[in-house]
Amino acid sequence: MSTQGKVITCKAAVAWMPGKPLKIEVVQVDPPKDHEVRIKVSLDWDGRIITMDHQKPSLKVRMWYKRAGEVESVGRGVTNFQPGDKVIPLFLPHCGQCPRCHSPKTNHCRKNCFINGQQVYQFLGVCSFSQYSVVPDTSLAKIRHDAPLDKVVLLGCGVSTGYGAAINTAKVRSGSSCAVFGLGAVGLSAVMGCKAAGATTIIAIDKNTRKFQKAQEMGATMCINPDDHRNIKIQDLVKEKTEGGVDFALECVGNTAALESTIDAWGVCVIAGWTETEKLSVEVEQLLLGRTIKGTYFGGWKGADAVPALVNKYMAKELKLDEFITHSFTLSEAPQSRFSPALSLLAFNSCRDIISNYEM
Amino acid sequence: MSTQGKVITCKAAVAWMPGKPLKIEVVQVDPPKDHEVRIKVSLDWDGRIITMDHQKPSLKVRMWYKRAGEVESVGRGVTNFQPGDKVIPLFLPHCGQCPRCHSPKTNHCRKNCFINGQQVYQFLGVCSFSQYSVVPDTSLAKIRHDAPLDKVVLLGCGVSTGYGAAINTAKVRSGSSCAVFGLGAVGLSAVMGCKAAGATTIIAIDKNTRKFQKAQEMGATMCINPDDHRNIKIQDLVKEKTEGGVDFALECVGNTAALESTIDAWGVCVIAGWTETEKLSVEVEQLLLGRTIKGTYFGGWKGADAVPALVNKYMAKELKLDEFITHSFTLSEAPQSRFSPALSLLAFNSCRDIISNYEM
Repeated sequence: MSTQGKVITCKAAVAWMPGKPLKIEVVQVDPPKDHEVRIKVSLDWDGRIITMDHQKPSLKVRMWYKRAGEVESVGRGVTNFQPGDKVIPLFLPHCGQCPRCHSPKTNHCRKNCFINGQQVYQFLGVCSFSQYSVVPDTSLAKIRHDAPLDKVVLLGCGVSTGYGAAINTAKVRSGSSCAVFGLGAVGLSAVMGCKAAGATTIIAIDKNTRKFQKAQEMGATMCINPDDHRNIKIQDLVKEKTEGGVDFALECVGNTAALESTIDAWGVCVIAGWTETEKLSVEVEQLLLGRTIKGTYFGGWKGADAVPALVNKYMAKELKLDEFITHSFTLSEAPQSRFSPALSLLAFNSCRDIISNYEM
Repeated sequence: MSTQGKVITCKAAVAWMPGKPLKIEVVQVDPPKDHEVRIKVSLDWDGRIITMDHQKPSLKVRMWYKRAGEVESVGRGVTNFQPGDKVIPLFLPHCGQCPRCHSPKTNHCRKNCFINGQQVYQFLGVCSFSQYSVVPDTSLAKIRHDAPLDKVVLLGCGVSTGYGAAINTAKVRSGSSCAVFGLGAVGLSAVMGCKAAGATTIIAIDKNTRKFQKAQEMGATMCINPDDHRNIKIQDLVKEKTEGGVDFALECVGNTAALESTIDAWGVCVIAGWTETEKLSVEVEQLLLGRTIKGTYFGGWKGADAVPALVNKYMAKELKLDEFITHSFTLSEAPQSRFSPALSLLAFNSCRDIISNYEM
């Protein structure tokens, strides 16, 4: 029996309290309204939870993260999607119509801030950690039918973010030197992006040495554990190894050392991951000497066009994804998983990567 | 009688204590050594004093600032200059030989950091507030003989810095919107640079409203005194006036509001002036939303080539200089001038502009 036009009752994993395990709840998912799409979520996701207002922790949390799925039904006015399409939801919308979507300068679609005139926080577009969910038709990328959802799901956030941070935001040049701080999914993808852009020196930095093998697979030419060099600051060590500093630093963990590890005169530091409530403290002279700091969101990609293209790259074996997956579990297993308390804790205080970052 | 090869005894204004008036002293200036040039300084300068180690105040101060003069004699190996040449000393050298001088990415000549193998601070290259002084031949720009030294002297620092911050570092685009924070010489020059680059909205911001008329002459389309709007933060006011923020903010006073006044998605903030000992505190989300912070030193100009070209622009009336000069005094008048204590005070704690900024 078709579910089109009807409310769907299904299960969802909900975080009620920070640091407490997720709880499976029965939820009701309305049919899609105008320009909305209801999708059946692939349950091979990795997971993260975020509050709707991530600056002010509250109990009204919704869960979300990288997801992929199939279109179950579409609301009125939806022309780009039909039932059965494989899709990846975009936490950064891409309407293709607004001045920002038309601008080559940014991927920050205007739909990101306003839905029906009410301001919402960024992650609403794809929130809910549920078997079914409804998303705006501007927050979906349609991908090829032969793509394995349990792999390409990673292009919904972390991998695209890190890879794009190197390619689109830093604009890493061929022959240049790079340092990547933090080797979670974002950091490892940044390493992969630096290599794809032709960097010849790629220094991967993390305190967890178990990540170094993956980093080398992704293209790192040198791996450093700061704890092995307690007599020297990591930024000074990077400078030593590169005769004055790297051309590009990718900050994927939340650490001011990245900027200071770049070469004066033209060093570029891209902030791709950060505990958003913290402030970044910069010695102004570091900037006056010619350095630049930039931020990136979703690696600068305009999702509706870029995600299908990245899926093609993966299918052509030009982009790694399988290597990022370390754990998977079903919706019903989620509350019992050892990641569950961390998932709900992170809902309340951070935007960092989880499953692929938490413990590799 | 020629002074070539001989020690010259002359006068210099010295700051012995922070906040105390300058003192005229008799000093001895050695002949130029290899690759050095001794110049007779034009005394129509405006003045600033800086310690040799500006991070750690000490009594061993030297005075410097924008100066212009004529070559008195040259040391061995100097090929680009001869006695009688009109010159402007460069606080940022431009040797034309090192990899950085060959790079289009920076104006930070390698000579800036090392002289004879000993690390020195940036301002040494042109320090001394004396009737004669000796500078490296890589820290001089030769300018046309018909240029009035008492005007083009301003191209030695502030005016070139602000003008270049807009043109070279921010790369202000035609039709864009700009905000300039602080209307000292650097800020007013930034306004002029924004206009030259074709900006159509130029918001000039200062608490001293006497600067507004000059700002308008330089191209400001709107002037704001933050004290007139105490119920709203200046960055929010700028956002209100520009539908979300300016494309480019030029920070010429030392204020974090500049970054936050730029539009998310592609706003660029250039730090052109700052109290260097202070740190800049940045909300990381401001960056993640697509903003960029850059620093500039001497406006990104490679001095030996750029300063003569800027002098030509002034002579062709394409660049204003006369409008910046508000006071002038001779060396012997300096200790009695009301700027004298401020000059010596600033020697110990800041790199801000003085005469043209102090009180306009």
